[in-house]
Order: sequence, then C-alpha cells, then structure tokens
Amino acid sequence: MIPRYSRPEMVAIWSPETKFKIWYEIEAHACEAMANIGVIPRENADAVWKAKDVEFDVARIDEIEAETRHDVIAFLTHLAEHVGSEEARFVHQGMTSSDVLDTCFNVQLVRAADILIEDAKGLMAALKRRALEHKNTIRIGRSHGIHAEPTTMGLTFARFYAEMDRNLRRLKTAREEISTGAISGAVGTFANIDPAVEEYVCAQLGLEPEPISTQVIPRDRHAAFFAALGVVSSTVENISTEIRHMQRTEVLEAAEFFSMGQKGSSAMPHKKNPILTENLTGLARLVRMTVIPALENVALWHERDISHSSVERNIGPDATITLDFALARLTSVIDKLLVYPENMLANMNKFPGLVMSQRVLLALTQAGVSREESYSMVQRNAMKVWETGCDFKTELLADDAVVKALGVEAIEEKFDLGYHTKHVDTIFARVFGKS
Amino acid sequence: MIPRYSRPEMVAIWSPETKFKIWYEIEAHACEAMANIGVIPRENADAVWKAKDVEFDVARIDEIEAETRHDVIAFLTHLAEHVGSEEARFVHQGMTSSDVLDTCFNVQLVRAADILIEDAKGLMAALKRRALEHKNTIRIGRSHGIHAEPTTMGLTFARFYAEMDRNLRRLKTAREEISTGAISGAVGTFANIDPAVEEYVCAQLGLEPEPISTQVIPRDRHAAFFAALGVVSSTVENISTEIRHMQRTEVLEAAEFFSMGQKGSSAMPHKKNPILTENLTGLARLVRMTVIPALENVALWHERDISHSSVERNIGPDATITLDFALARLTSVIDKLLVYPENMLANMNKFPGLVMSQRVLLALTQAGVSREESYSMVQRNAMKVWETGCDFKTELLADDAVVKALGVEAIEEKFDLGYHTKHVDTIFARVFGKS
Amino acid sequence: MIPRYSRPEMVAIWSPETKFKIWYEIEAHACEAMANIGVIPRENADAVWKAKDVEFDVARIDEIEAETRHDVIAFLTHLAEHVGSEEARFVHQGMTSSDVLDTCFNVQLVRAADILIEDAKGLMAALKRRALEHKNTIRIGRSHGIHAEPTTMGLTFARFYAEMDRNLRRLKTAREEISTGAISGAVGTFANIDPAVEEYVCAQLGLEPEPISTQVIPRDRHAAFFAALGVVSSTVENISTEIRHMQRTEVLEAAEFFSMGQKGSSAMPHKKNPILTENLTGLARLVRMTVIPALENVALWHERDISHSSVERNIGPDATITLDFALARLTSVIDKLLVYPENMLANMNKFPGLVMSQRVLLALTQAGVSREESYSMVQRNAMKVWETGCDFKTELLADDAVVKALGVEAIEEKFDLGYHTKHVDTIFARVFGKS
Amino acid sequence: MIPRYSRPEMVAIWSPETKFKIWYEIEAHACEAMANIGVIPRENADAVWKAKDVEFDVARIDEIEAETRHDVIAFLTHLAEHVGSEEARFVHQGMTSSDVLDTCFNVQLVRAADILIEDAKGLMAALKRRALEHKNTIRIGRSHGIHAEPTTMGLTFARFYAEMDRNLRRLKTAREEISTGAISGAVGTFANIDPAVEEYVCAQLGLEPEPISTQVIPRDRHAAFFAALGVVSSTVENISTEIRHMQRTEVLEAAEFFSMGQKGSSAMPHKKNPILTENLTGLARLVRMTVIPALENVALWHERDISHSSVERNIGPDATITLDFALARLTSVIDKLLVYPENMLANMNKFPGLVMSQRVLLALTQAGVSREESYSMVQRNAMKVWETGCDFKTELLADDAVVKALGVEAIEEKFDLGYHTKHVDTIFARVFGKS
Repeated sequence: MIPRYSRPEMVAIWSPETKFKIWYEIEAHACEAMANIGVIPRENADAVWKAKDVEFDVARIDEIEAETRHDVIAFLTHLAEHVGSEEARFVHQGMTSSDVLDTCFNVQLVRAADILIEDAKGLMAALKRRALEHKNTIRIGRSHGIHAEPTTMGLTFARFYAEMDRNLRRLKTAREEISTGAISGAVGTFANIDPAVEEYVCAQLGLEPEPISTQVIPRDRHAAFFAALGVVSSTVENISTEIRHMQRTEVLEAAEFFSMGQKGSSAMPHKKNPILTENLTGLARLVRMTVIPALENVALWHERDISHSSVERNIGPDATITLDFALARLTSVIDKLLVYPENMLANMNKFPGLVMSQRVLLALTQAGVSREESYSMVQRNAMKVWETGCDFKTELLADDAVVKALGVEAIEEKFDLGYHTKHVDTIFARVFGKS
Repeated sequence: MIPRYSRPEMVAIWSPETKFKIWYEIEAHACEAMANIGVIPRENADAVWKAKDVEFDVARIDEIEAETRHDVIAFLTHLAEHVGSEEARFVHQGMTSSDVLDTCFNVQLVRAADILIEDAKGLMAALKRRALEHKNTIRIGRSHGIHAEPTTMGLTFARFYAEMDRNLRRLKTAREEISTGAISGAVGTFANIDPAVEEYVCAQLGLEPEPISTQVIPRDRHAAFFAALGVVSSTVENISTEIRHMQRTEVLEAAEFFSMGQKGSSAMPHKKNPILTENLTGLARLVRMTVIPALENVALWHERDISHSSVERNIGPDATITLDFALARLTSVIDKLLVYPENMLANMNKFPGLVMSQRVLLALTQAGVSREESYSMVQRNAMKVWETGCDFKTELLADDAVVKALGVEAIEEKFDLGYHTKHVDTIFARVFGKS
Repeated sequence: MIPRYSRPEMVAIWSPETKFKIWYEIEAHACEAMANIGVIPRENADAVWKAKDVEFDVARIDEIEAETRHDVIAFLTHLAEHVGSEEARFVHQGMTSSDVLDTCFNVQLVRAADILIEDAKGLMAALKRRALEHKNTIRIGRSHGIHAEPTTMGLTFARFYAEMDRNLRRLKTAREEISTGAISGAVGTFANIDPAVEEYVCAQLGLEPEPISTQVIPRDRHAAFFAALGVVSSTVENISTEIRHMQRTEVLEAAEFFSMGQKGSSAMPHKKNPILTENLTGLARLVRMTVIPALENVALWHERDISHSSVERNIGPDATITLDFALARLTSVIDKLLVYPENMLANMNKFPGLVMSQRVLLALTQAGVSREESYSMVQRNAMKVWETGCDFKTELLADDAVVKALGVEAIEEKFDLGYHTKHVDTIFARVFGKS
Repeated sequence: MIPRYSRPEMVAIWSPETKFKIWYEIEAHACEAMANIGVIPRENADAVWKAKDVEFDVARIDEIEAETRHDVIAFLTHLAEHVGSEEARFVHQGMTSSDVLDTCFNVQLVRAADILIEDAKGLMAALKRRALEHKNTIRIGRSHGIHAEPTTMGLTFARFYAEMDRNLRRLKTAREEISTGAISGAVGTFANIDPAVEEYVCAQLGLEPEPISTQVIPRDRHAAFFAALGVVSSTVENISTEIRHMQRTEVLEAAEFFSMGQKGSSAMPHKKNPILTENLTGLARLVRMTVIPALENVALWHERDISHSSVERNIGPDATITLDFALARLTSVIDKLLVYPENMLANMNKFPGLVMSQRVLLALTQAGVSREESYSMVQRNAMKVWETGCDFKTELLADDAVVKALGVEAIEEKFDLGYHTKHVDTIFARVFGKS
C-alpha cells in the first residue's frame, strides 16, 4: 500500500491506534465476562473500563515493545499504566496473545469488508444509472475485437452491474468467513479460560465464536477472504479493460472524464489517456497477487506457526486498501464516463451494413437457396463493401438474384437495428428486476 | 493431469464422449424449445432425438474438424449423419458456438462439483470417525513446532473436520457459481433466438439461465469456482502437513498405513515414509496454481475474446481431477492412519512435566508470590528437568519454597491432564452438534 | 498439456519410452564407471550394454510397478529380464532412486531447453525478416492506446526481436541451471558409491556433476528454469497482444493469415478473428502459472521430501510442451502476418496532422512565443481538426499568427515524417548489429 | 513493506528524496550531453548544476503536483525554482516523462541489487564459517522426514552455501537485466532527442543504453529481475524450513539464538520458538508473490500503457526491502545458530544402529546370501530394535546366521560412521574450492 492509492477511512482501520483500541476492547470485554462468571472480582473488571476513552500512546507502546520484544505484553504493560497495576492484574488472564491478535485481525477484516461492501454498492449504483441512461444506445458488439452484431451500451453497463452484484454476494460471504473470534488459550482447549468468555467477547464485537480453534483461528477462512478480493479485483480489471478499449483513438466510443486543470488537454485533444483505468488494471494485479500467499498461509504447523503473520501484516492492509481505492476510483470513472453514441454508430458502419451479412446469409438459406449459392451471393456483395466501403444494403438491393430470393422488404428488414434490441427489456428485467 | 493422479469417474466427465453427449443434449433440448414456441417444425425437433442413444464417434468428428477447423460445426455435421441432413437443418439455428461450449463447460463443472462435494463428505466422515475414536487421546499441542500445552488427537481430527465442513460449504457455493447456461447468440442479445429457448434448455440441464451474457458466460463465475478449489486444496496441504510432521522419526505419533506388499517395510521398520501426504502436498500446489490464470481469464475483450479457452481446456480437467484424487487419497490416509497414543505420551514427557511450567508459574503468582520470585522458583526447577531429564513435579515437590507457596495438593493438581481436556465435549458439540 | 497444443518432438521427450531409455543410459554408464574403478566386474558392466537397442516395454514395467509399487525397482526388474538376472546384479549398486530420477529429469529438461532455444531462434528469424521488410513502414506509435508520434512497423518487429534475444539468453542460462546430474546416494554423501561414478555418468550425458546434492538435486535450479519459461511466455503474450490490437476492426493494421479453407472467410470478410494470438495469450497464462509451484518446490524437508515430484510430473511436460507449441505458433503467425501499411497511414491521419501538435507547440515556444500564447495558438487549430476532421497543417498555414511565428517552411517541416524515422537505422544497428 | 521488516539503507533507495535526486542527475546529465553536441547553450547546461547539492523539497513538489497532476512536470517546475526559469528552459527538452521515470527506476533497482548482492555474500560467509565449523558434526540425513543415512551438519550448511552461490549469480544476472537506461522520446524513435544524449546519460549513471525502447524500457527485464528475487526468497524459505525442523522439541538439533532479554526464556527452557525463521518463511511468500504481477506487466499495449506503474510503485520497494531484510535476518540467524551435536547423535540413535540396516542387508546379499534370506535375517533383528529399543549391532552379533555370513569384523565395520563421511572433503572442495 502506498498513500497515492489509498483512502483515509480504510487506512484508519489498519492504524496502530485502531488496533490497540480493538485489543483494549477485547481485553475489557474478557474481564467483564470473567467477572460475570465469577472468575475475577467485579471491581477489577470495572477498573479496566477506566481506560475506555483513552487514546493509547503508540510511541510509548513501541518503546516498551523494544524492551520486551512482545507486542501484546507491551500493550498490557501500557494499559496497566492507565488502569493501575493492581487493578489490571487480571487482564488477559488465561488468554494467549493470539486470542487478542486473531480476534482483532478479524474485527479489522470485518470492518474492511463493510467498506468494500459499500464500495460495491456504490459502483453498482453508478453502473445502473449509466445502464438505464444508455439502455438503447446502439453500439457494435465485438468478439475477438472484431465486429460481430449490434448490442447496446446499456447492456455493457448492465453486465458489469450483474458481475458486481455477484461480487457483492461474494464480499458478503467473505465477510462471514472471517466474522469469528477465538479466546481459547494456548492450544485452543480452553484449559485456562472458560468458553463463556469467548462467547461473551464475540457477542460484544459482533463475531461468532470460532467453533474450534488451536492457538489461532484457522487460516482457510482468511484464504477464502483474500480469494474473494482477488475475484472482485478481476472485475475491476474487466471493466477497466473495456473502457481502455473504448477510449483508444481509433475506437473513441467513450473516454474517462478529463478535468480542465489537467495539462495538455485542450492543445492536444487527441491525447486524453485512459490513465485511471490503466492504473486500475495495475491495482487489480496487486490485489490478485495476495491470493497465493493467503492460500499458502493455510498449512500451519501443528497448533500454529507464525509464518502467516508477516504475510498478513502486509496483505491485510494492502489488499483491502488497494481494493477500496480501486472500487472508489472505478465508481468515479463510471459516473463521469464520457460516452460518444455518434462514434459508436460510426464505428459500426465502418464497413456499412457488413455486420448484417450473417443475417442475410441465414435468410437466404431459410428462403431455400442452397448453402453454396447463398454464400456466393453474400460474398460478392460483401467483398465490394470491404474493398470500397460502399453500403452493403445498397449492393444487395442492386443484386437481382438476392432481391429475387428475398424481396426488397425482407432485405430492408435485415438492416433494422430493432431486431437486435428487441430483448433488451427482458435482459434488463433479469438484471435489475421488473420495475 | 496425468493418469497416475486421477480417478475414472472424474476423468469421464472430461472425455470427448461426454462432451459430445452434452452438446447433443443442449442442441436437442434447444430444438425442442424452438418447436414448443413454434419457431421450427415439431417433426424436426423430434427427429433430433433419434440420436438419443448414439455414442458419438470421436474419431469421425475429429476428422471433420481437421477439415472445417471448427469443433462445433464438425459435431453438427456428424450429428446430421445420424439424424439426416434434411431433418437436422434447424439444429443450432440462431445459436452461436459458445452457447453450446459454455453451457457444456458449466454442466461439466457442475458434475465435477458434485463429485468433489461427495469427496468432501467422505473425508469428513473419516475425520469424524477418527475424531470420536481419539477424542481423549492425549497429545502435546505445539506452537512453532515447540511443545505448548496438552490437547487431544481427537481435537486435531475435529478441527480438520470443521475446516472441511467450511470447504463443503465453499464447494456448494462454487457449484452454484457455475450452475448457469446461456443460449443468447453472438453477442448475448437474443437477436436470433428467443430467451425462452435458453430457459427451457437450462431447466432441462439443471442450470439457471445466465441473467446477462455476452457471447460467453461471464468468467468471474469460473474464477470464483477455481478459487474455491484452491482453498480446498490448501486444506489438503494443511492436513497432509500435520501427518507428515507426526510421522517423522523423532515424533512418530502417527503413520500412513503401510501395506505389507510394499518393499522394505519390515526389514527397515524405521523407513516408512509419509509419501502419500507428501504427494498430496504437491497435488495441492497443482490445484492452487490454477487460481491465478482463472482470475486472469476474467478480463476478456468486449463481448469476448478466446484467450480463456486454452486455459480452461487445461485447468478445467486438471484442477477437478487432481482435487478429486487428492481428496480421495486423503480420505484413505485418514481412514487407515496408524495412531500411536503411547508415543504421544512419550513425546509429551520428553522433558517430564515441563509443559506444565506455565501453569505452575501462574499458580505461584496467583498465590501471591511476586512475579520475580515466582519466576525464579520455576526456573531453578525447570532447568534441572531441561538439563538432566528428571521429573518436574518431583523437583517441585522437593522444593520447600514451592511447597510452602502452593501446597502438595495444588502442585499435584497442576499436573492433572483432565485440566486440559475438560472442554473437549464442549468443542465436539460445537463441531459435530450435540448428540 | 493437451494434444491440441503440443508438438511431437517435445512430447517425445516426456514419453515413458524416452524416460526409460535415459534411465537405462544412466544405469549402464554407471556400471561402466564402476567397472572402470574396479568396483564391479567388467563383464557385468559389459553385459548391461546388451540392452542397448532395446525398446523397453512400458506396459510390462507398469505391470511390475503395480506389484512393487516402486518405479525404479520395476524398471530394474524389467532390465534384468533383458540382461539376465545374474549379469544385472550390480546394476544400480550403491545408488538411490533419485540418482536416476533426478538425473533423468535434468536430461529431459536440457533436451526441452534445446528445443526451446531453437524455437526462440526461429521466432527471432521471422521477426528480423519482418522488421527489415517493414523497416520504414510508417505507423502511429501509441501510448495508453492513444496516438502519440509516428514510428515504424519495423521498429515494432525489431523490439520484439530484441526481447526474444534476451529470452534466448535467458533460455541458455536456464539450460545451464539444470544441466547437472547427481549420483550421490541416499543422502548425498557418496557413502555407497564413488564420486567418480557421478563424474563419469555426467560426462557421458553432457551434464555437470552437481557440486553438492542431498538425496536430490537442489530445486532452486528448477525454480530458476521455470521462472525463465515464465518470462519467455510473457513475451509471447506481449507480441500476441500487439497483434490482437492491430487486427481489431477499427485498427486493422495487420491480421493473422487466414487460410481459404477456414469457413466464413470470404462471405464475412470483416470477421477474421485473431484466434491464434488470443490462444497464445491463454497459453502464456498456462506457462506462467507453473512458476509459483516451481518456487514452492524449493523448500524440501531436510535431505528431501517428495512433494516436488507430483508437481514436476505435471509442470515439466506441461510448461515445456506448451511453450514450444506457443513459440512455434507465434513464429508462424509472424511469418505470415498480413500487414496493411495503407491502413496504418489512414489511422495515423484519423485527425489529420494532429499527432504533430506537440512538435508545433515546441517549435512555437522555441521561436520565443510565450508558453501560454503557444498553447492557445495550437489549441484553436487543434480543436478544429478534432471537431471537423479538417487538416491540421492547412489550418496552421491559414493562421496568421502561427505563420508569423514559424514561417511556412518551418510549419511544413513539422509534418515531415522523415523527422521521426531519421534514427531507425541507428536503432536497427543496435538491435541487429551493423551489416 | 512495513517498517518492521525493513532496513534503512534499502528503504533510502526508495525515498522521494532519492528519487528526485536521480531525476535531477538524469536531467542535468542530459543537458550536459545536449550542450556537448551543441543542441543547447553550454551556459544553460552549466546552470543546471547549480542545484547539485540541493536537497529537493518533497512537500513543495507534492504541492505543485497536486495542481499539475503530473509528477515530472512538478519536479521540473521546482527545479526551475532553484536554477532559474530562464536558465532551466532547456531542461527535459525533447524528452518524455518515461525517459526520466524508467531510467530512474532502473538506477534504483541497480542500487537495490547491489545491496542484495552484498547481502548474499554476507549470508554465504556465515554459511561457510558454520560449514567449516561443523564439517564433521555427524547427524542423521533424512528423506521424507524419516531417518535415512548419516551425513554431517557441515554438509547441510555447505549445500545452503552452494545454493546461495547460485543465487549470487542470479542476482548479478538480474542486476544486468535492469542496468539499462532510455532517453528516446515519446515512442522511442529519438525524433526529438539525439541518441548521443541517451548514451552520455547512461554512461554517467553506469547503465547501458536500452538498444530499443518504446516510450518505456521493455518490462521483460523487470519480470526477469523479480523472478530472480522470487528464486532467492525460496532459498530463504528452504534454509528457514531446515532450521524450524531442527528446533522442534522432539528434534532439537539446533536453535535460533535466544537473547536473555526475551521474556520467558529461562523459566520455560523448552519454549524457545524459531520465530525468526518462521517469520522468514512468511517474508519469502511476500517476495514470491511479486513474481506473477511482474510477469503480467510485460504485455503492455503498443508503445506503452501505464498499468505497470502502480504495480511497480509497490513491488519495487516491497520486494527489495523485504528480501534485503530477510537475507540480513537469515545471516544473523545462521551466524548465531545454536547447534547441538550431542542431540544429533541421540536422535540418530533413537533406534540404536537401525539406520545401518540397509548397509547390512547389502553386505549379506553381496556375501552371497539370497535376497529373501538376507531380508529375513535383517528383519528379525531390526524388529527387535524397533520394538524394544535395543542395539542393532548387538543383536546382529548375537545372531549366529548373521555372524556366520559376515563375520564379526565386517559387522562391526558396517557401523563405522567414517564410512559415511569419507567424501566430505571431496564435496567441500567442490563447494568451496580446494584450499
């Protein structure tokens, strides 16, 4: 993660201040729970809440850690400075560091997921608005980068909407995957702490108790989480790739909004680069690269080894911050995307009418002309269009054999764009629901 | 995929015979649907069913493809050889090759998912059985490969069960992800085919109609599918790593079953290698490697490019066949795993009683001894155990200061293994449900 | 690997027949070496050569392996069937299976590398030929998919040549990486076999003795090998992406050769799809995906575990066969690529002369016009071109202020294409050497 | 990258201050070169050197960039504030931003490579020292985690040395890969700048001119660079995995040095965790994950798109900083590693003498006993050792049939450890050279 590609709300989740706040809450709730079941005195549990509004001093904790070489002990030592050594003496009793670290990490991931879910919804709203706006804006559909049959710009936006809708579901599932906490002790047996403590703390934090943990929460959960982010980032790349293609000089069916402040815009009007979507293509690679180490993190030795930790210290913030930024940037791109319907028509008619050649071919065979003859009839006219840029329909109407086989009206009908858009409403209803 | 690591049922899904059978069903159901809505004559739809029991001739289709350079056209040509050219003339009308290819691919993936789901259940059954069998078999829990606190072998099996249970859920979700079909034409507009055909064919094949497709079914679905397989494979690695550790000479708490036919077993009893779980570790890497290309496949150009195709022709069979084989092999390993409870105890007691040192330390501080003093009392006895291998409890009982602080009974109690297993029932109930 | 994407020569390297042949050679040379140093009788070494021309019976070996569950023992048993049990009794003496397996694998990789090196040279030859052919074929250079300044098609081919030249070097280095053999026994100590045997066998096979092996040859070598293949495959993607862009309908500066046999070519002249380069894009992903597992294979446990084996059984053939096929296919694409210089000019002049706007801007400021004023002068003319498609030079020549600042001649000069091609010779000399 | 896993020297390479310094040098040398060939006035070139000792004001440049939205323009504007607008007016003439950015990035990568090369040498020195120290320290070699035959600890260190030696070579090659600069203008044609400028600037910076660039330096170079780092990181994982295994409680043949300040060390002597090498295992994953996006960066669109940029802004610093830290940490671990030769012997003798069973078996067959009979003789004695822990040699000497077949002396000889270490000198000479 670098500041250039980040947004403050997501960054804040990963700050040391937030982390210590969550650690504090876990410890305080745990004391509360231990008091509830009579394991520690009520007043000691109450005393911990004295630090409720404390903004913990990260520099001080770092200082203690430099000495103790243990982050959780450093924090607890600092906490005792606020609560009082004597009052704080039951804090963390029977717990292991991972109880705090893992539960905290999941709280952070849940919060990150909440932001990403809102991001996804924001992007969907933008896509839906543009889909409705361009529902019937005709453009040529392309397979292999080659003109195929007409479609509409609205359908393009709609399919990205549908893809993001699936991603929304995946993000919600991913959120569930890591919505667990564990306070189960050194090897997960609850030897030194009652399961009731885990249940209470999790309930306070909006988590489910991990049904069975070791020293750590099992990492298949996190693997599934990052894999979901990888899928979402691939959609970011997918949408970005479409826009980059649309903006290239020869196509120019759409362009990223270009603010006037940007140098060079008006003196070189042809030089408006799709840098945001190119950037998003790169950011997608960055999110995607975190999937493999997340998968490699699953196979820990016995009840835990700590190899996953350095990985997660990096990919936890990096993947969520980058994807948050990417989704927000993409939403803005979609919102402000300049769409050029007239260029869409011009492109479609680069070889006037030629995209209808398949329909004509089909019509000829259906009219009883042999396959070979149909082929030859289409070919002789199509090649003229290809070579001279004349109009295919005009050529067909001037070809007696074709007119004889199909009739003028049927030929005209083959060039009706309504033929291609007749089911747009059906598809929109599938994607956005009946309105 | 190589035969060595495959099972016939999964391999069969990916055979050309199966593929052509599915293509046939798609085409036949599509004709049926077209007849239903009056687009083609009923008798032509009926005629296609004449080939219902035909085993298509793969060599013949390959021969035609060598000429036409188009697989779907080759198949249709061959189909016409069975149905009759005239009768078959409406087959595939208004459809595009991808309608057949993509719908077929998803049928294959759904079938593959069904097998993997059964595999997961089989593995879970084995894990559950062994978990119950060893519910109270004491072994030392380890963090960082170092002895921590006692746990039980049953808890180890139970946590793998819980992990596989999550994988079962993920596989079911993955199955849903790719349970769609599309018969929507060249760019997904249904210009040449009615959406009713797609609905009918999908219903017959147990699929949902893809709400919005282009020429192809969107590849985020497949990315999510392969990502799920990657997570499952990481669990395979996780369980395998545990067994490999347990079998190493110095640990020897468990061993893969070693059939008598295997050369060298009895003359070199120490030389029983965990080759199955080592192999599974490698197979996990093979499944995992397919995740990235599946994610890279999402960003196709415009309404489709065909870059995904060569990738899927490989990873489709490879990932599913390998994971199926791996899950089956792992199930067999778990089922027959030799467990050595006596070695577990011996290992735990390598430094007799030392794993209880933390409990003793805690007890001393709780008994009011200062932290420094407690530390010193534990240390002087622990070091003797560490250096001479004597028994920690015996040493403590011979240390007047310790006895004075805790009393004999309390010292004895600290070495009670029941302390560590008291919540095993609770955890089992969480994992397996109350029985 | 699937047959569709493979070539016989590379496939043959990975056949069981080839493997057993190499195993045989290793064993025979090892016997020879042992006889040379007097460890075994000369006649027994000689006897092994009786099988020199034997084509080993794979089915028979498989049959024995099914029983012994050990591939090397199965082979040795079968070998004895040819050589005679008595004569063969010293074969493999003091060796471990990995001595044979790993040395064989490296022989196969070396042979594969040799083919890939020839492939690279073939591709380079095609690129060079096309580079020279189109050395001065003007086309617009593009950054961000947007027109920038003129370049030539020859430079495009030349840079791919230079990139392949680096790949050639990488392939040679990769070949060296895995050009070692090891015959060092169970843990690499030569306890049961003299280092002289390793030296002799390696010399016969064109390998270097691995300076220090364990039971296996260290896997960082193979990791580096597959990483190199990953880089080469990325170049395949790079070149393919360029061609796919050039072929898209709106650009059409080049096209994959389209053989007349291919259905639909002439009736739909606009529908020639760059399917080969799309396919190559996918194949590049397949090769690339093998890099991560190859890297994961490095960290084996102690003197070896066998987790790498299943990985290599797959990625060894898959990566080399796929890359060989890809390089050959790409060579053919380049060789036959249809290049459309007139379309290149037409594209460059989509907004006539506008790509020169930056040069004009620079000239104005160099002529002493203030930056703001220069900007404004360029802008007012550029926007007319952008909006109406008129000719930029004509507009400038009609703009008194511009003419006054630069003079007619200087304006004309700014549109001289020779300005952009004046260093093509220099660059060609750098890439291809002075001729 | 996070501060926790970084070292200042490498971090400094990636600071904005360093970057701007390099940008400055490129621009100043370019002016020099342009003056040399008479393109700009000498005094303007000289004037730029006024800023030679300026520490550029990053905040000020950021401020300008916020306005211009272009980092290079922002820098040039700030540079003019130091040099004077008038004097600076030829700075960057004819150049494109990427000329500066890409050349700078490569300077940074070269410097990073230089540090990594020193790191590798440092690690090699540590490994060599420990190899010589433990050249003849006997330990059991293990395949599959199972005891195989004796080896020495020195051989373990030596093989890691040899692996790092290969990595040193790879790092040097990687350094060469990215030791190029490019100052070739908007599409690499040198239209606006003479190739002599590129040559001069590169010479000053210790780079080679990129033979053919587009707007950017080709990214296959960077892909190869990061791939090399991925291989090196896999060695980090390999060595770390060995140490983690050696430190596990049941093995305890070595341990990371445990400073006395670390909490809990002496009261729980058994609880010394290999946290450094576990951490290194995770760091290796982080470096490795950058390989795929680096490979994906190769296929840029036409003369460049900017998708690679966001990727490199992250992985450039991240991979080099992490690997630098990892190599340094690993060097320290090796330097201070506690080695326990007595435990090595104890482990080897877990089943006393049993690791020699294969040698005995071989001796019996060589002595003419049939394979079946030999097997049975070894087996009956081996099983006693396995089951009761008695001594294998003692049992053999008490077995009349064995004594009869081999004689007492030959039996004794089979248990001579010198048999296994006799070629250690040979191997050391291969690895470290004859001394």
